[in-house]
Amino acid sequence: MYPRRILEEKLLHLLAEDVGQGDVTTSAVVPSKCKAEANVIAKSDGVVAGIEETVTLAEALGLNVDCFVDDGVKIKENQVLIKLTGKAATILTAERTMLNLLSRMSGIATATRTLNEKINKAKLKTRIAATRKSAPGLLYFDKKAVIIGGGDPHRLHLDDMILIKDNHIAVAGNITEAVKRARQNASFSKKIEVEVTTAEDALKVAELGVDIVMLDNFSPQEIKELMKHWKKKGFCGIMTEASGGITSKNILEFAATGVDVISMGELTHSVEALDISLEIVKTV
Amino acid sequence: MYPRRILEEKLLHLLAEDVGQGDVTTSAVVPSKCKAEANVIAKSDGVVAGIEETVTLAEALGLNVDCFVDDGVKIKENQVLIKLTGKAATILTAERTMLNLLSRMSGIATATRTLNEKINKAKLKTRIAATRKSAPGLLYFDKKAVIIGGGDPHRLHLDDMILIKDNHIAVAGNITEAVKRARQNASFSKKIEVEVTTAEDALKVAELGVDIVMLDNFSPQEIKELMKHWKKKGFCGIMTEASGGITSKNILEFAATGVDVISMGELTHSVEALDISLEIVKTV
Amino acid sequence: MYPRRILEEKLLHLLAEDVGQGDVTTSAVVPSKCKAEANVIAKSDGVVAGIEETVTLAEALGLNVDCFVDDGVKIKENQVLIKLTGKAATILTAERTMLNLLSRMSGIATATRTLNEKINKAKLKTRIAATRKSAPGLLYFDKKAVIIGGGDPHRLHLDDMILIKDNHIAVAGNITEAVKRARQNASFSKKIEVEVTTAEDALKVAELGVDIVMLDNFSPQEIKELMKHWKKKGFCGIMTEASGGITSKNILEFAATGVDVISMGELTHSVEALDISLEIVKTV
Amino acid sequence: MYPRRILEEKLLHLLAEDVGQGDVTTSAVVPSKCKAEANVIAKSDGVVAGIEETVTLAEALGLNVDCFVDDGVKIKENQVLIKLTGKAATILTAERTMLNLLSRMSGIATATRTLNEKINKAKLKTRIAATRKSAPGLLYFDKKAVIIGGGDPHRLHLDDMILIKDNHIAVAGNITEAVKRARQNASFSKKIEVEVTTAEDALKVAELGVDIVMLDNFSPQEIKELMKHWKKKGFCGIMTEASGGITSKNILEFAATGVDVISMGELTHSVEALDISLEIVKTV
Amino acid sequence: MYPRRILEEKLLHLLAEDVGQGDVTTSAVVPSKCKAEANVIAKSDGVVAGIEETVTLAEALGLNVDCFVDDGVKIKENQVLIKLTGKAATILTAERTMLNLLSRMSGIATATRTLNEKINKAKLKTRIAATRKSAPGLLYFDKKAVIIGGGDPHRLHLDDMILIKDNHIAVAGNITEAVKRARQNASFSKKIEVEVTTAEDALKVAELGVDIVMLDNFSPQEIKELMKHWKKKGFCGIMTEASGGITSKNILEFAATGVDVISMGELTHSVEALDISLEIVKTV
Amino acid sequence: MYPRRILEEKLLHLLAEDVGQGDVTTSAVVPSKCKAEANVIAKSDGVVAGIEETVTLAEALGLNVDCFVDDGVKIKENQVLIKLTGKAATILTAERTMLNLLSRMSGIATATRTLNEKINKAKLKTRIAATRKSAPGLLYFDKKAVIIGGGDPHRLHLDDMILIKDNHIAVAGNITEAVKRARQNASFSKKIEVEVTTAEDALKVAELGVDIVMLDNFSPQEIKELMKHWKKKGFCGIMTEASGGITSKNILEFAATGVDVISMGELTHSVEALDISLEIVKTV
Repeated sequence: MYPRRILEEKLLHLLAEDVGQGDVTTSAVVPSKCKAEANVIAKSDGVVAGIEETVTLAEALGLNVDCFVDDGVKIKENQVLIKLTGKAATILTAERTMLNLLSRMSGIATATRTLNEKINKAKLKTRIAATRKSAPGLLYFDKKAVIIGGGDPHRLHLDDMILIKDNHIAVAGNITEAVKRARQNASFSKKIEVEVTTAEDALKVAELGVDIVMLDNFSPQEIKELMKHWKKKGFCGIMTEASGGITSKNILEFAATGVDVISMGELTHSVEALDISLEIVKTV
Repeated sequence: MYPRRILEEKLLHLLAEDVGQGDVTTSAVVPSKCKAEANVIAKSDGVVAGIEETVTLAEALGLNVDCFVDDGVKIKENQVLIKLTGKAATILTAERTMLNLLSRMSGIATATRTLNEKINKAKLKTRIAATRKSAPGLLYFDKKAVIIGGGDPHRLHLDDMILIKDNHIAVAGNITEAVKRARQNASFSKKIEVEVTTAEDALKVAELGVDIVMLDNFSPQEIKELMKHWKKKGFCGIMTEASGGITSKNILEFAATGVDVISMGELTHSVEALDISLEIVKTV
Repeated sequence: MYPRRILEEKLLHLLAEDVGQGDVTTSAVVPSKCKAEANVIAKSDGVVAGIEETVTLAEALGLNVDCFVDDGVKIKENQVLIKLTGKAATILTAERTMLNLLSRMSGIATATRTLNEKINKAKLKTRIAATRKSAPGLLYFDKKAVIIGGGDPHRLHLDDMILIKDNHIAVAGNITEAVKRARQNASFSKKIEVEVTTAEDALKVAELGVDIVMLDNFSPQEIKELMKHWKKKGFCGIMTEASGGITSKNILEFAATGVDVISMGELTHSVEALDISLEIVKTV
Repeated sequence: MYPRRILEEKLLHLLAEDVGQGDVTTSAVVPSKCKAEANVIAKSDGVVAGIEETVTLAEALGLNVDCFVDDGVKIKENQVLIKLTGKAATILTAERTMLNLLSRMSGIATATRTLNEKINKAKLKTRIAATRKSAPGLLYFDKKAVIIGGGDPHRLHLDDMILIKDNHIAVAGNITEAVKRARQNASFSKKIEVEVTTAEDALKVAELGVDIVMLDNFSPQEIKELMKHWKKKGFCGIMTEASGGITSKNILEFAATGVDVISMGELTHSVEALDISLEIVKTV
Repeated sequence: MYPRRILEEKLLHLLAEDVGQGDVTTSAVVPSKCKAEANVIAKSDGVVAGIEETVTLAEALGLNVDCFVDDGVKIKENQVLIKLTGKAATILTAERTMLNLLSRMSGIATATRTLNEKINKAKLKTRIAATRKSAPGLLYFDKKAVIIGGGDPHRLHLDDMILIKDNHIAVAGNITEAVKRARQNASFSKKIEVEVTTAEDALKVAELGVDIVMLDNFSPQEIKELMKHWKKKGFCGIMTEASGGITSKNILEFAATGVDVISMGELTHSVEALDISLEIVKTV
Repeated sequence: MYPRRILEEKLLHLLAEDVGQGDVTTSAVVPSKCKAEANVIAKSDGVVAGIEETVTLAEALGLNVDCFVDDGVKIKENQVLIKLTGKAATILTAERTMLNLLSRMSGIATATRTLNEKINKAKLKTRIAATRKSAPGLLYFDKKAVIIGGGDPHRLHLDDMILIKDNHIAVAGNITEAVKRARQNASFSKKIEVEVTTAEDALKVAELGVDIVMLDNFSPQEIKELMKHWKKKGFCGIMTEASGGITSKNILEFAATGVDVISMGELTHSVEALDISLEIVKTV
C-alpha cells in the first residue's frame, strides 16, 4: 500500500538496525566480488505474505530476483519461493532481515487464513479483524499480512476511526456523554464505534446513532440474544463486532451468532512465525 | 542499555507511528484539560520486562509515574505494576504503544525464565540464548527482554561476532577455508563461532582455533558423543552451542549433554505476549 | 492532537530548516547571556490559531511563556497574545518560525470562521470542510487550523477514508465497478465517499450503498433538485457534499440547498496569513 | 539547486506525510498491475514553477515522464504540462502531493513575474525580493519559485547574511552599537544589512559602513528625499531596500524612487495557488 | 550558534553512533543505580573549545555539570575543566563522545589562536580563515572552533557566498564570463568572491566589480606587487584573500603583504586533537 | 562493510550538510545542462582509501565513473584516481564532500600502512590497532580506513566487546570485582579485555580468565619483563595489547616486546589528510 520508494526506506531502515557498523562475518569470509545464487525456501506449509517486501528490499540492494509466488498464495514445505542472484555478500548480509519479515508476515497470514476458512466452510459471513495489539513499529506490516490472509485490518492507527473504549467512557463520565461528544466533534469522514459490556448499553448507543458497536466479552449466547433485539429495532445498518475471549476453538460459535466482525488481538500480538529459510545454491 | 535520551527517541518514534495525524477519538471525547489516574495491571502471571521503557515513555510525555515493580520481577494476575497520573488525553493516546511493548517484552522474559528455571532445577548450567530471528526493528527490545528473563542475548547484530554459518561456508568453498579467512581478516576483538553439521567438522574447526562451535541439528545423543572427544582433545576452552530442533519439551535432554549454550529462535520470533492492560481509575 | 513531544519534534524540525548553520545576525549582535521580554502582537483582527504550537516551541527552547489567549479566540489589532521571557538570542532566532506558523494557522482559522458565521447567521447547518489541497508538509497544521476555525478537516490523509474520485473511476472503468470494488475490499472501519458529476450518478451510487456522495461542480439549483429525489428515495442517512466553484459570495446559495457539507480547497491552498508580529519590549 | 537525490528525499518525505499508512482508496479500487497515462493540465494562465520537482518525484516513483514545459515558462489554461505513464496506482497516490507543490510554486512564480513585468514595462530596474515570511518547512521551494518568477530570494535562512532588524537593535541598545558589533564579529564573507525607520538612521548606518540599508515603512516620497542625500554623500555602492506597505498597486511609486530592491512578504506568506490538475487519459 | 535543542539533537545523534545497541561494558560492570563524580581534565596546554557542546550533551543525559571554563579560554595541563555528577553508567557511556568532540574542537581552536597571536604580535591585521576542507559531517563544529580560536569561519557551506573557483571558470569558459553570470544571477544578499592565479586576472575581476579576490598560490612577493596596483586603482573596498602554500612558518610573510585574509585548509582537515581526559573521582 | 544503499544514505547525508539550501555559486555560474569530465588526482604519495565511498556517492548522484585504483593501493603524486563524467553542476557541488572524505580516509590509511611496513620490515608480527578516539560521527569511515591501511579496527563501538578501563574499575571498586561482574553478566559472544597499569594486575586478571589484557603506559622494558611471566604461566592464549605513549619513533621497541597488539589513538584523532584534488578537464 506504500509507494515502492517509501517502502524501500522503511525496509532499509530495518536492515540498517541489524547491520550496525557492518556484517563482520561476511566481510571476513566472502570476497566482495563473489557472486551467488540463493533460494528462499518454505520449511513448512502455510500462506505466504511479505513477498512484495522481500522483492523490494532485494532489488533495492541490487540483487536480481525471480519470484515464483504472489502474496497470499498457499505454499508447501520445501517450495522455492524466490531465487536471488547477485553479490554473495549482499545476499548474506540481508538474509536475516528478509527472512524475519517474511516469516512473521507469513505466520500472520497463515493464522488469519485458517480462521477464515473455518468460517467459510461453515457458510458464515463474519469477517475476521485484527486489532492495534501488534508489535510496536510493525503495525503496517502486521496489518498488511492480515489483509493478505483475508482478514480486515480494522483501524490502522489512532487517526483512523473514532473508537470509544472503556477508558474513554470512564473519562467522559458515561457512555451517552462520550457518544454525544464524538458525534459533535468528529469529522463527518470518520465512522464512530463504541465498546459496550452490556446488551443494554449496546441498544443505547445504537439509538444514539453510532456506526459500529463492539460487544466486549459477550458470550455467544448473549450476542444471539442481542441480535434478536437488533433486528426488531431495525438497527441492521449498524454493524456489530465481537471481541474478547475468542479463540480458534470457539470462533464458530461466535460467528454463528450473526455478528458482523470478530476481532482478535492474538493475530498480531502473539504471532507464530512461519519457518522459511535461505540457501546459497551456487557461487560464481 | 541505551542512554535514556536515546531510548526516549526510539520510543517516541514507535508512538508516532501509532498516532498518525492524531488520536481522533481522544480529541473528540476527552477535554484537553482533564486529568486522570490509571493503573497498568497484569492480567496473567509471568515475568515483567519493559518497565524501564514504559516509565521512560510515560515521563517523556509529561506523566507522573509510580512504579511498583522492577524489570525481571515475577508478577501475578491483577497485580498493579505502574500508576500513571496526568493528562487523561496523554494516557489514552499512549496506552496501546506502552502496552504493546510491555506485553511483548514480558512475554519474552517469561518464556526465557521458564526455560531457565527448568535447567536450574535440574542442577544444570547450560545458558539459554536468543538468536537474530526476531521481529525486524525490535532487536534491541527483544534481546533486552531475553536478558531480563535470564538468557543470553547472543549477537546483538551483524557487527558483533564472527558467526560462520552454512551459507558462508557454501560461498567460501569449504569450512577450513572459511575459518582460515575469518582468522586472517577478523579483528582480534571479535570471537569466532562456526556452525557445523557433523561431529567431524566440529573437531576440525576446534583444531583450527575458533572460540565457539555451533552444533546445528545434532541430537542429544550425538552431542554427548562429541563431548567425550572434546574432553579428550582438551578443547574445553572452546565453547559449544546447540541449535535447531530444541523445544521446551526436550530442552533438558540437550542441557544434560554438557553443551555450554542452547540457542532458540522461537524465544523472539514466535512470542506470546503477556496479557497486561491499563485502566483509568480516577478522573479529576 | 499530537502528543506534545511529537509536536515538539515537528516544530524543532521546522525551526532547524530556517536556522541552517546558525543565526549569524544574532550571534554577531546579541551577547549570549542577554535576557529579554518580548510580546507577540496581533496586527489585525481575526481568529487566532497556532497558540499551542507557539507555546510548545517557545517552551521547548527554554523560554518562559505567558499566554493570554486560547486557540480559536477572536483577537483584535494590537492585542498582545503571548509574552515570552528568556534568552534574547533564543527569542530572536525562533521569532520568524513561530510567527510564520502562527500567521498561517490564524489566517486559515479566520477564513474558516468567517464562512461559518455566514452560514450560522442564515440559520443553516451545512458544515464547511477543508480538502487535501494544502501546502505540502503542512497538512497537520492546516487541518488543525480549519478545526479551530470551526470547520471539518475532511480526510487527514490518504489512509483515512475511501474517496473515489474521477480518476479512480476512469481507471476502474465505470462508477459501478469502482464502488463495487471499494465495498468488497475496504475495511469495515472506513466510510466510502464517491465523487459524481451528474444527478443520475448520485442516485446510482446511493443505491449501491455508499456513505457520502460528493457532488462535483453542481449548481445550487441542481443540488436542490437532487435533494428532492434524495428524500423521496429515503437516502437521508447518506450524506452529501458539494464541491467546486464555491466562493464566499455564493456559499449561502449552496448552503441553502440542504447539502450536508461544503468543501473548499482555497481554505488551505490559498491562505492569506494573518498579520502578527513580535516585539522586544525589555532587555535585562 | 539541491542535487537531485537530495531533492528526491525531500519530496518523498512530503509524499509520505500524505500517504500515511497507505492510499486506501487506490488499494481498494485499482488493481496493482493496471497501467495508465495521465496529463498534468493547467486550469488557468500563469507562470509555471515546480516542474523539476514534479518530474523528480514522478521518476523517483518509477513513472515515465514526458515534460512539455520548463520552469519559468508562461502557460495557458488547458495546456498539457506533463504526461505521466506507468502504474495507475502510483499516479493516483502521488497526484495530490505533486499538484499541491506545483500549484503553490506556480502561484508564487506567477505573482512575482506579474510584479516584475510591471516594473520592466515602466523601464525601471528595481529588483523584487522575497522575505523569510514563508510557509514553515517550504522555504526552499518558495524561494526557488520566486527566483523562477524573476525575483530575488533574499536570505535563504538565518545563516545567510547579517540582517539587523528592529528587535536586534532593541537588544543591542542602539543602532550604532548593533552595527559596530556586527562589523566586529561577522565573517568577512557575509554582507551586512540594517533595517532603519528614519532617514537619519539610514545615513548614520551608511556612514558606519554597511552593505545594504533596509528602509522600513518609508513612503515613496521619503525614499526619494533620502536618495538625493545618498547620491550627494557618495553612498552609491551601498544598496537600498524598501520594505513594508508595498502592494501591487503602489509598487511603481516605490520603484520610481530609485531604491535598489523592493521586498514583499506576501509573495510567500499569502500565496494564491495556481489551478493545475491531473487527468487520467488512458488505462492499459 | 544552534539553538540548544537543535544542538542537543546533533550531539545525541553522534552519541548514538558510538553506543550502537548499548554499552555492554558498563551494563556488565556498573550497577544502574551507582552514582559518581568525574572530572574532565586537560592533559596539555591549549585553548579550549567544545565546552558548550560537552555541557549540553551532559545535561541532556541528566548529569549535573559544574563548568569552570568558558569556550575560548587558555587552559593548562592538569586543569579541571568540568565536573560531572550523576549516574556512573551515563558518564562512562558518554565519556568518549564528549572527549572526542572536545579534543577535536580544542585542537582546532588552539592551532587557530597560535597563528592569530603570531600575527597580532607582529602588529598585523590579517584575518586567519578556515576553508570547507573539513571532516565531513563536522563542518558546524569545526567552524565554530575556528571562531572560538579567533579565526573567521569563511563560508559555512555552499549556500553561503558566491565563490568562483578554477573549476567554475573552466566550465564557464573564462573568468569574465563566470563573473558576469554570477553578477547577473546571484542574489543581492550574497558577496561574490573569485579565485585567480595571476595578478592580471586579479585586476580584471576587480574591475568587473566583485567583493573579494582570492589569490591562489601567490608568493608573498607577488602579493606585495599586486597590492601596489590595488591602491593605485582605488580597489581598496575590494578585499583580498591569500590561499595555498601558507604554513605557520611563512604566515608572517604573507600577513605582511597587507592581504586582508589568509585561509588555510589544514586548520580543519588535518587537526591535531588536544589531549583531554575524564577521570572518575568519587563514587557514591 | 555497509550494504551499498545504506552507505549511499550516509554519504548523501554528509553531502546535504555541505549543500545547505543549494550551491549558489554553481547555480549562478553553471548552466544546468552543461556536461563535464573531471579527474580526481593525487597531489602527494600515499595509500588510497575512500574509493568505494567516492564511487558510490558519484554514482548515486547520476555521474559516470571510471575508477583506476582500488582501496588500499599505493598512489603517486599526480596520479589520476577516478574520472567522473556527467552534469558539471553535480560534479562541482559534490566535489568538496567527496574530496574531504577521500583525503581523510587516505590520510588514515597512509599513516597506518607506514607503521605496518615498519613492523613488517623488522620481521615482527604485532598488529597495529585503532581506538575509539575518532572524529565523532566518522567512526565507520575512520575504522574502515584503518583496515584498508592494514590495521585492526579494534572495537567499532560500545556494544562490541567488554573493555574494562580505569574508570570502570574505579566505579566497581577494584579490578577483581570488575572482572568478576563482567564474566558473570556479559554475553558468551563477547571477548573481555581489561586495562591494567601494573604487571601485578596484568597477571591477576589473566588468572581471572579474561581474553585480552591492555597494558596501559607500560615501557617496552616493563612489557618484556611481563612477557616472560606470561609464558611461564602459560597465558599464551590470552592476548596482550600495549597502549599509551607509543609513537612512530618508538613503535619498534614496543613491537619487539612480543606484545600482540599496539593501539594508537592518533591514527584517528589526529589525522593528516592526504592531498587529493579534482580538476575539470573537459566541458561539453
